[in-house]
Amino acid sequence: MNNTVTDTGAPFYLALDFGGTKHAAALIEMGSPDPIVRRVAAGSQSDRVRDLQAMDGLIQELRAHANPTAIGVSFGGPVDYQTGIVRLSHHVPQWENFSLADYLAATYRLPAVVDNDANVAALGEHRFGAGRGMEAMLYVTVSTGVGGGLVLGGEIWRGFRSMAGEIGHTVVDPHGPRCLCGKHGCVERLASGPYMVHDAMVRLEQNPDSGKVLRQLLAGNERPLDGALLSEAAAMGDELARTLFRRSAAALGTGIGNAVNLLDLPLVVVGGGVSKSGDLWWETLRETVDSVLLPEIHAKVEQAELGDVAPLWGAAVLASLRFHPDQSQPAS
Amino acid sequence: MNNTVTDTGAPFYLALDFGGTKHAAALIEMGSPDPIVRRVAAGSQSDRVRDLQAMDGLIQELRAHANPTAIGVSFGGPVDYQTGIVRLSHHVPQWENFSLADYLAATYRLPAVVDNDANVAALGEHRFGAGRGMEAMLYVTVSTGVGGGLVLGGEIWRGFRSMAGEIGHTVVDPHGPRCLCGKHGCVERLASGPYMVHDAMVRLEQNPDSGKVLRQLLAGNERPLDGALLSEAAAMGDELARTLFRRSAAALGTGIGNAVNLLDLPLVVVGGGVSKSGDLWWETLRETVDSVLLPEIHAKVEQAELGDVAPLWGAAVLASLRFHPDQSQPAS
Repeated sequence: MNNTVTDTGAPFYLALDFGGTKHAAALIEMGSPDPIVRRVAAGSQSDRVRDLQAMDGLIQELRAHANPTAIGVSFGGPVDYQTGIVRLSHHVPQWENFSLADYLAATYRLPAVVDNDANVAALGEHRFGAGRGMEAMLYVTVSTGVGGGLVLGGEIWRGFRSMAGEIGHTVVDPHGPRCLCGKHGCVERLASGPYMVHDAMVRLEQNPDSGKVLRQLLAGNERPLDGALLSEAAAMGDELARTLFRRSAAALGTGIGNAVNLLDLPLVVVGGGVSKSGDLWWETLRETVDSVLLPEIHAKVEQAELGDVAPLWGAAVLASLRFHPDQSQPAS
Repeated sequence: MNNTVTDTGAPFYLALDFGGTKHAAALIEMGSPDPIVRRVAAGSQSDRVRDLQAMDGLIQELRAHANPTAIGVSFGGPVDYQTGIVRLSHHVPQWENFSLADYLAATYRLPAVVDNDANVAALGEHRFGAGRGMEAMLYVTVSTGVGGGLVLGGEIWRGFRSMAGEIGHTVVDPHGPRCLCGKHGCVERLASGPYMVHDAMVRLEQNPDSGKVLRQLLAGNERPLDGALLSEAAAMGDELARTLFRRSAAALGTGIGNAVNLLDLPLVVVGGGVSKSGDLWWETLRETVDSVLLPEIHAKVEQAELGDVAPLWGAAVLASLRFHPDQSQPAS
């Protein structure tokens, strides 16, 4: 990525990504392949004011390069899309009912539009990634949580109160373990990274014969038991780790298969850290989806292409759709 | 219903309902409350040719009253909406890949449009029944099977190959009993009438202490064990029957809750024979939906209003949307 900007006459957008572990901002010219991107780690003791200060630093840097015409925002938590009010942050305090779109518009004197990270990443993958040209698709991200964004008829389907896409809290096993949301056997409870790590720890404690490879990797306490270690153990043949990855992929596959049976979608795009877990996870995922789909229904399940820039590209699309709908279509 | 027709200048539609146990046809003037309806039982040994002959009798009767301008059809099985080709009938042989829309257009010299019964009933309930004025809703019918129709943005969402709405084959309990489709714990396997009756028979056989009231009702072999009898036994306090109705409603409630979490729908309309099973079933259904929904998501779950004329009204709406889109909106 370069740091110069060529003016092609297309609008520039300021794309903001408020994430759990880092914030990012980009200056994006639609149709130009090289956005200018700036990133900063989110402090572990952060709050809304600190998040906004950190983002302000990135914005000031970017505005030295060009004058954007509007702001698009990806936010890591539920947002009321119409008003741009954040319902809450999954990670950081003081965000409840904060009018983020109004705040940004007043502070930077630019029109601003805000949506949750899953919808925004879905927009990015749909316009520039694995979903290019598709009339409909489901985007699912599996990392610390499980989020979803639905593209129906070429547009994000947000539902009655901007809450659509919650595939993570669909129930796929009522006899499964209890989720933080109170239900048993949610997709998120079975498929997300932190819960897999949690369940690995519990099983290592409860069953001294389990997880031989995993125990070797953990010996000496040099590395913490996290998703990366669990993935490494699975690749080395550890049965406990492999069981947990299979369970993760099977739960997600059931949730995805259910969604596709309901909506007859031709494509599901899967991203997020857990989606980088390798062949065992992907094979189990695709086998499970196929087993759930009715014989008349077929959907491709593809890996997301944009990685962690999906929310930035998506935020630019979000701004273009809201503020320049005539210019928001990609060049054909 | 009367048998005379007053000409208000609005188009007349011929609405056809090819069902599993009966066929119906109606002459419907949009905006007029009294359609002329004719019905005939479907022969148990029927095939496509006999079905079409039976329907022809009804159509000839109706055409004596007025000249319809188009035909709308509700069909009990998957249909390709764009082409009007029936994929198969759930009940009757010889329907595979039959061009029903083309056949009707050629035979009756009227433009014809065909959709599956769940989508058509959803259209009927949305325009004239429990879903009036709603931007989005899910319609579910629970009887011999479990079918669904989705209204999103005021229109039926049919998906990639006209297969959307298959909530009956979403999985809500992978440890549950095996469905005819090959999966375990589909909504249809747990919630539909014939499977409940089947499971009641198996449990009566396997456990001599179960179903005391049910056994009394069955004594003497005067009545068959069917949905009506099971419902009666449940109302009289039979624990086996009550367990099966609770399981039916809980499975459907989980499937509905999953769909609402995914789509953030404000309304679900439930019809079909099993939905007339009384308070225990409805209480369990609503409690389960509430338990599955995220705290930020709220949906009303209402009983369908139109009963078995929903497909006829819906078929008229279907024809009006296709052939007279300018006149298809209800008078405000």
